[in-house]
Amino acid sequence: MGILWPGAMGSALGRAWRSAGVEVVTSLDGRSARTRDLAGDLTALGSLEEVVRVCDAVVSVVPPAHAVTQAEQIAAAVRRTGSTPVVADLNAVSPATMGQVATVLEAAGCVVVDGAISGPPPRPDGDTALFLSGASCSPFADLAAPGLRAVVVGSEVGAASATKMSTAAVYKGTKALLLQSLLTARHHGVLDAVVADLSTGAPELTAHLARDLAVAASKSDRLPAEMREIASTQAAAGAGAELYEAVAEVFERADASAAGAATPEEAASAIDLDAVLDALTRHR
Amino acid sequence: MGILWPGAMGSALGRAWRSAGVEVVTSLDGRSARTRDLAGDLTALGSLEEVVRVCDAVVSVVPPAHAVTQAEQIAAAVRRTGSTPVVADLNAVSPATMGQVATVLEAAGCVVVDGAISGPPPRPDGDTALFLSGASCSPFADLAAPGLRAVVVGSEVGAASATKMSTAAVYKGTKALLLQSLLTARHHGVLDAVVADLSTGAPELTAHLARDLAVAASKSDRLPAEMREIASTQAAAGAGAELYEAVAEVFERADASAAGAATPEEAASAIDLDAVLDALTRHR
Repeated sequence: MGILWPGAMGSALGRAWRSAGVEVVTSLDGRSARTRDLAGDLTALGSLEEVVRVCDAVVSVVPPAHAVTQAEQIAAAVRRTGSTPVVADLNAVSPATMGQVATVLEAAGCVVVDGAISGPPPRPDGDTALFLSGASCSPFADLAAPGLRAVVVGSEVGAASATKMSTAAVYKGTKALLLQSLLTARHHGVLDAVVADLSTGAPELTAHLARDLAVAASKSDRLPAEMREIASTQAAAGAGAELYEAVAEVFERADASAAGAATPEEAASAIDLDAVLDALTRHR
Repeated sequence: MGILWPGAMGSALGRAWRSAGVEVVTSLDGRSARTRDLAGDLTALGSLEEVVRVCDAVVSVVPPAHAVTQAEQIAAAVRRTGSTPVVADLNAVSPATMGQVATVLEAAGCVVVDGAISGPPPRPDGDTALFLSGASCSPFADLAAPGLRAVVVGSEVGAASATKMSTAAVYKGTKALLLQSLLTARHHGVLDAVVADLSTGAPELTAHLARDLAVAASKSDRLPAEMREIASTQAAAGAGAELYEAVAEVFERADASAAGAATPEEAASAIDLDAVLDALTRHR
């Protein structure tokens, strides 16, 4: 198995599958020190071509804005090597974008699996779902790993992406609602009253407010692209694009704020809601 | 105590206060059969003037789009009668709209209390919060009633409205997210997979999906105005208007759908999510 572009999610997937007995390799050519840290002790090969040459299956896990470009790089490597692994695109993209990815990869001779991850990077004691769809979801559907659950949601490329677009709409959309609501409450000096009310009425949304909003802000460089994939998915389904276009704008503002400058790892330790909201009102 | 314009919320408030020993009257002049049913056995006087004349305190509970017009009607009745009750505006309006309401009523000589209700119409076994703010919140802050909790959130008119704008943003915004997400999931044939995932990841949001979305659709005639009050509140707080302008559009589409034709009482018994989503995709 090859994990291409191993960020926090790809690295954790690699470790989960390796702990289940799968040989996992990656490529760190030209990647940042942070990515090298995240990849940890995964076996690193020199280049994308080497990964494509030695693997039966490879996965692409990148920010949604890069999904098609990365598919084109995989297709080029496949053509150069003559090796045609099964490719799973696990990116948070619309069914339409997934269709473009599949077209690029199938033209190079690859079998394509549509996949998407719901939940945090898998941990042995966690529960992360890997949605899968396609004519065949092998080998990904068969790789049980601690904390990682494969869920085949359909036989068409696009179904797994549609599932992710629908679940992420709720998980990430609620962060945008909370962010806007609590910035407004703080502006009016009623933050404590609002948090107290929401803690009663929506305890699961508010159990870790400071951390949740800090982490959302720290990921706001890539969230707008994912929200626009959701917007176009909803528009194509007849439900209108305006809501997630607006959510994208909320995260763009968060990215431009002081809170957007933190890494997700730094943000995960935030416990002071007032400080997080204050950082969200200041420019970087 | 006078409950002006007793809909589902005003009538329930009246019953709660009456059960706590307060004399409660209302006016049903020119109201619909449905409102007369909702008012039940509250003592009905003939006109707004009569209510203003006999009451020490009156409350206005109307759809947000009507709050200022109703304040003008109260002010006119106050001027005609020479009686100046304390007036609580419990409407879901922005602090800016509440400021307009207060200006109109104070010019007629009334003491104004800013109020807002968070939660369902009060029931003896429920927990509904009545946010209050103003220089004096008497007598509303002192009227304990079963299932109704008074919460003084500040000493300025506007603070209670800001609190409501912040909590409603989350409670009603999440309905819009779910509506968009599940319409999209159903379009792609992955509704079951999405509901299963959300039921694990967000159980409190998804415990009563069919009912919650049916009720939201049935109230979609008045929700856009409330969402636009939230949008202008957030914009005035520097947080941007686009998100709740978009939420307003979601509810406008719901109102135009077959699901928007139901009354809230009919919608409350919905249990078939697929049927609710189907009705949301059809025009009235």
